[in-house]
Amino acid sequence: MIKSTKVNAAILIIGNEILSGRTQDTNTGTIALWLNSIGVQVKEVRVIPDIENTIITTVNELREKNDYVFTTGGIGPTHDDITAESISKAFKLNYEIHKEAFKILEAYYKPGEFNEGRQKMVWMPKEANLILNPTSGAPGFNIDNVFCLPGVPSILKSMLGALKNKIIGGEPILSHTISLRTVESEIAKSLTNVQDKNNDVEIGSYPFFQAGKLGVSIVIRSESQSKIDQCSSEILIFVNKKKIEIVSR
Amino acid sequence: MIKSTKVNAAILIIGNEILSGRTQDTNTGTIALWLNSIGVQVKEVRVIPDIENTIITTVNELREKNDYVFTTGGIGPTHDDITAESISKAFKLNYEIHKEAFKILEAYYKPGEFNEGRQKMVWMPKEANLILNPTSGAPGFNIDNVFCLPGVPSILKSMLGALKNKIIGGEPILSHTISLRTVESEIAKSLTNVQDKNNDVEIGSYPFFQAGKLGVSIVIRSESQSKIDQCSSEILIFVNKKKIEIVSR
Repeated sequence: MIKSTKVNAAILIIGNEILSGRTQDTNTGTIALWLNSIGVQVKEVRVIPDIENTIITTVNELREKNDYVFTTGGIGPTHDDITAESISKAFKLNYEIHKEAFKILEAYYKPGEFNEGRQKMVWMPKEANLILNPTSGAPGFNIDNVFCLPGVPSILKSMLGALKNKIIGGEPILSHTISLRTVESEIAKSLTNVQDKNNDVEIGSYPFFQAGKLGVSIVIRSESQSKIDQCSSEILIFVNKKKIEIVSR
Repeated sequence: MIKSTKVNAAILIIGNEILSGRTQDTNTGTIALWLNSIGVQVKEVRVIPDIENTIITTVNELREKNDYVFTTGGIGPTHDDITAESISKAFKLNYEIHKEAFKILEAYYKPGEFNEGRQKMVWMPKEANLILNPTSGAPGFNIDNVFCLPGVPSILKSMLGALKNKIIGGEPILSHTISLRTVESEIAKSLTNVQDKNNDVEIGSYPFFQAGKLGVSIVIRSESQSKIDQCSSEILIFVNKKKIEIVSR
């Protein structure tokens, strides 16, 4: 983790289907990459079940500890969609019909199609700010530093753009990757030396197996391009000394 | 979540690369599906950075709250692999060379190849039990109810078999999926009725988009096949009444 005055966030994935292994979460990656690009660092991700008390206590813990909290899942029309009501309780706000959301969905659906199930999706914490949904109508919402997004990855992706002006990030977090034809143990000591000399840069080492060959990707992350360049050149010095093949840099 | 005397577990994913969005976690799904099959239900997943204090406090919280804790990542040879030392501190155990692990890796590598970097991988909490690694030699380890596995998905997968006799689960958690050509709002109310009548069964509703068509998968989970069958037939009654097309059941 980069130590800095960084703006940070937690992601809260709400849904039994992730915990059971039935569904592979991809929203964490989507949100994290987008947050990096606007200078917000994800410090923690939690996956929890569709249980009201668990949602309430987890949201309250995470919103205290982080600048921003992003939740995914549980804002659809069925009985297992309990995020909006739980968030209302977490903030001790009334859970009620959001007039603007009602108008949006009333206009979105054909006459007669805005049925009881769909009307559930306009129930939100009192005075929630809407997060518009260009894909399927039903908006997400934001209360204080908590942003509630849907679980369906394509819909979630389409909604992030609308959030850009609501999130105040720091400097974007930059990264550079050097991929080597080696194994981790070969470079472990030299890499430790570089990390020790550059404490405010995050250096990660990740083995990979590609086209039948082993390799290691070294990922350097910082807000400062010059610090990344400095680390990068220190790494390339030992790589060249050890005559390790560079796959990409 | 199924309410029962169920054996439960938490999964703790350790690694900056997941939080940055660079790497997509797939270990959660692998571990969760395997645990389901031996009657253990995952109640919580957390993803945290490679920071010692965070690992210590999170492990200590999770091992108190859950029957089992599975960690992934951070047991390799590089500077950012700090799981074993952090777990030692969480349990207030010495962090030391594990003699059996040393012998395993000494025999695994060719003469001269068991270098300093690789030797880091035999440092573990005192009296840890090894989890053998049929893929790449370096074992994971277990202390009390905490099981530490590597982050590389293919290696992790190959190590789960060895754990089967160490985990005492309950009844396997069974599931049945009914996929319908409909939208959630169409079935929301009827599905709520079925859930209300069958409180001890977990019914999830998940929209999907396949081959250009929208649909909804209803997933019924329980330890009891007869309860699943009961729910399933109640669902099919309203599906037939509403003349909804069944994609699969």
